Amino acid sequence: MTIDTDYFDLTGSEALKAVFRNHATGISIVTSTDAEGNPIGFTASSVTSLGSVPPLVSLNIAQGASTYQHVRPGKLLAIHTLDADNLALAQKLAAGKEGRFADNDFGIGPESTPIFLDASSVLLARVVNKIEVEANALVVLSAESAHQTRSPKEPLVYFQRGYHTVGDRLIDNF
Amino acid sequence: MTIDTDYFDLTGSEALKAVFRNHATGISIVTSTDAEGNPIGFTASSVTSLGSVPPLVSLNIAQGASTYQHVRPGKLLAIHTLDADNLALAQKLAAGKEGRFADNDFGIGPESTPIFLDASSVLLARVVNKIEVEANALVVLSAESAHQTRSPKEPLVYFQRGYHTVGDRLIDNF
Repeated sequence: MTIDTDYFDLTGSEALKAVFRNHATGISIVTSTDAEGNPIGFTASSVTSLGSVPPLVSLNIAQGASTYQHVRPGKLLAIHTLDADNLALAQKLAAGKEGRFADNDFGIGPESTPIFLDASSVLLARVVNKIEVEANALVVLSAESAHQTRSPKEPLVYFQRGYHTVGDRLIDNF
Repeated sequence: MTIDTDYFDLTGSEALKAVFRNHATGISIVTSTDAEGNPIGFTASSVTSLGSVPPLVSLNIAQGASTYQHVRPGKLLAIHTLDADNLALAQKLAAGKEGRFADNDFGIGPESTPIFLDASSVLLARVVNKIEVEANALVVLSAESAHQTRSPKEPLVYFQRGYHTVGDRLIDNF
């Protein structure tokens, strides 16, 4: 069967938005420090593995983000995976930057990196490269070390403009 | 509170794997053609939005993948979002390349791109850049057009080495 060009009736940004509303993404929070050593951080839906040998991670960041200038080669970042129990933390780090660290509910890790101990796991990763693409950037990080607090039962995912948990396990893929 | 380096007791690849087992990812299938126009495709857990103005997408691919050489600048790819109902399709496109298109259950779209009509939505996107990083590559694509078949209730996600559906909606983020 031949599928005409007409079948693809959404174009450009509308096409992208419609498809990504249908696509679920894992939610994490990423923290680091600014040039004065103050904590910075944001909620991310783009953290992805980029191979395990060597262990690399990628994430996407908008050039308009308040944290953009601080995410640069050599910088240590802490990537926290989140459970449904961490919903308030995800919302706080996605809201105005003034409130993100106002509750003093974090510890101070290596290189003064803020660490949220409630996260299900934390990966320390160092920025290797930051590749500007139009109004955004692809960031490549080298995974250095991690702490796993627990194996989450209900990780936090984003889907159709809202926060969800993961539901039924359909099948193993060992 | 100061958190010692000892807290991060996993290193390198072990650190990466432990954290990404805790991190859920959306599942999609990506199709295109080889140099002879034959269908190629794979199941991906790395498809991510890279900004909506202009509409860009990123995905990660291993240089060892059979499809690697065909994913190159100028090539049109079809990115399909999947529901729990599409589990068999996700498994088929993640298995041996010989069987991926053996069932003739797809249509032929623009530039001979194979299109699975059962997908909840399909985005046509053209490769803009392919950036090699160690044994993998970051691929940047420009979103051109899309078809939305339905608004999925149970998108397919990958978590702790198994396929899952999305569960309860916790809160809107409009």
